[in-house]
Amino acid sequence: MRAAVHRAVEELVAEEGNEPLTIPVVAARAGVHATTVYRRWGAVGDLLADVVTSRFSGDIVVPDTGSLRGDLERYACDLAKDLCDPDTLALVRATIGIGGEQGAAACRSERERQLEAILERDQGRGHRPPTLERTTDAVLAPLYYRAVFTDFPLTLDWARGLVTYLLPAA
Amino acid sequence: MRAAVHRAVEELVAEEGNEPLTIPVVAARAGVHATTVYRRWGAVGDLLADVVTSRFSGDIVVPDTGSLRGDLERYACDLAKDLCDPDTLALVRATIGIGGEQGAAACRSERERQLEAILERDQGRGHRPPTLERTTDAVLAPLYYRAVFTDFPLTLDWARGLVTYLLPAA
Repeated sequence: MRAAVHRAVEELVAEEGNEPLTIPVVAARAGVHATTVYRRWGAVGDLLADVVTSRFSGDIVVPDTGSLRGDLERYACDLAKDLCDPDTLALVRATIGIGGEQGAAACRSERERQLEAILERDQGRGHRPPTLERTTDAVLAPLYYRAVFTDFPLTLDWARGLVTYLLPAA
Repeated sequence: MRAAVHRAVEELVAEEGNEPLTIPVVAARAGVHATTVYRRWGAVGDLLADVVTSRFSGDIVVPDTGSLRGDLERYACDLAKDLCDPDTLALVRATIGIGGEQGAAACRSERERQLEAILERDQGRGHRPPTLERTTDAVLAPLYYRAVFTDFPLTLDWARGLVTYLLPAA
């Protein structure tokens, strides 16, 4: 049932129909009773947050190239490729629009955890990496901003360049 | 009529009701015929983009402090204050969710024009400011990312700090 509902949400969001995304619409597409969906997720915002969370967990492996710069460049490029996917982007936009605070958190929490793991690994090597806040502002934020707010391409050169600005000394 | 419809959209978005935002819902709140709204705006996404555009144009005056650093700090602080307003934030989120590419462009185009004006003025002083792309990545993107995706506060110290990272030499 969960898989069918998740698939229905992903399909409906990707189609970007003019019909607003509601529990009855999702239930009809998934071929389940709306009451079942209401009972399990409560509101369409919670459902979207759940879909995003399961879509995003594990789809980017934390890179381990041996250096902070290498890890961050790999991370930025993986995220750029991921956000270029129109279905992912449609899902992120819909989740922000409908899912409120909780949906927005679902869109970023896995990504921030991965960044944190990269920074902690560098600390484990005895270095002093930038803070998570600084790395989020310099790398994660421009990637999400460009994907969600603009139609500029998320090129890999540009994504790597964000890391160069964060870690200027080569 | 336009003012009544705009006000209805802003109210409905700010209330964050569970009912999806549709033209009939907006028309009923504004006390006008749905057909009139359809004829003028076509779809709720176009209507939201129009509301955002008129809300954002002119609400931040391009600062003119005499220096690039001063202008960018003022700009970042003004934008941070603006995005702290829950109604503005709800409107931005709804527009991204429903308005697609066009809605997203409406959320940022005025802000980017202001940034461009600041950079051009500095060029007019004979300096070589960072590019618009670089300034967007370093200042505009983190402000929007933090507002839209997180519940961290957009403090003025943090906003000014973004400018310090962009223009390190004091």
